[in-house]
Amino acid sequence: MPETIAPTQINHLGIAVRNLEEALTIWRDGLGLTVERIVHLPERGLHIAFLPCGQTTIELVAPAREDSEISKFLAERGPGIHHVCLQYTDIAQAGRQAQDRGLRLLGEGPQLGAEGLPVRFAHPKSTAGALVEMLEKVDVQGV
Amino acid sequence: MPETIAPTQINHLGIAVRNLEEALTIWRDGLGLTVERIVHLPERGLHIAFLPCGQTTIELVAPAREDSEISKFLAERGPGIHHVCLQYTDIAQAGRQAQDRGLRLLGEGPQLGAEGLPVRFAHPKSTAGALVEMLEKVDVQGV
Repeated sequence: MPETIAPTQINHLGIAVRNLEEALTIWRDGLGLTVERIVHLPERGLHIAFLPCGQTTIELVAPAREDSEISKFLAERGPGIHHVCLQYTDIAQAGRQAQDRGLRLLGEGPQLGAEGLPVRFAHPKSTAGALVEMLEKVDVQGV
Repeated sequence: MPETIAPTQINHLGIAVRNLEEALTIWRDGLGLTVERIVHLPERGLHIAFLPCGQTTIELVAPAREDSEISKFLAERGPGIHHVCLQYTDIAQAGRQAQDRGLRLLGEGPQLGAEGLPVRFAHPKSTAGALVEMLEKVDVQGV
């Protein structure tokens, strides 16, 4: 039995929103979080606002166009909590462990996420409906 | 303009699951988290497994009966990420701030949550679909 590889923390929580300004009145003004930065990813059709919260970050993900990466989720489920990102020191090993236990991973291998670090998603049908992202970051205590 | 009260961290993330044993094969065996404890709350019709992850905790919430507190969500949305719990040092002040900015809070005031600490939920219609729980804990760095 190989040693279990455990996530070191929740890196971020992705929230699907229809409109970034409206979402900021909730998460910044109402709930009191601070916006660290807003990034625009035209190739993925996304605007993302990063609001740190302790060790992790709330990411508000809004569509920049109708065929954005978040549009299907918004159309089918409506806005709300979209995914949780678990942070590992070794995403290849974590991915093998997950696959060995029956989880399906999307894509052929890790890709670069909005955080500038390697990420990989598990298929929500293999995680009982929760969309789980795995992210690799070697700095265990880093935010 | 009063000073903003900000959450100190994400206290936990609630995941709605149909069956705790099945969910543990995903979150414990596949993703590598460790079960700290499992609590049974017969008055709320819930089984909850607590899996710490860095500063925060993944809570797997399963129904113990057909009219449990999670059953409506499971029937309408299916299993998946249910809510995010933000931790504040003063939940009354945080609640007033949220209400002043247009958020609707459920109930007349804080109640005791599964963590043994005062909690209060915001109505998801006032948070653009994300179910947000506010929890009071004075120890800023505590897990």
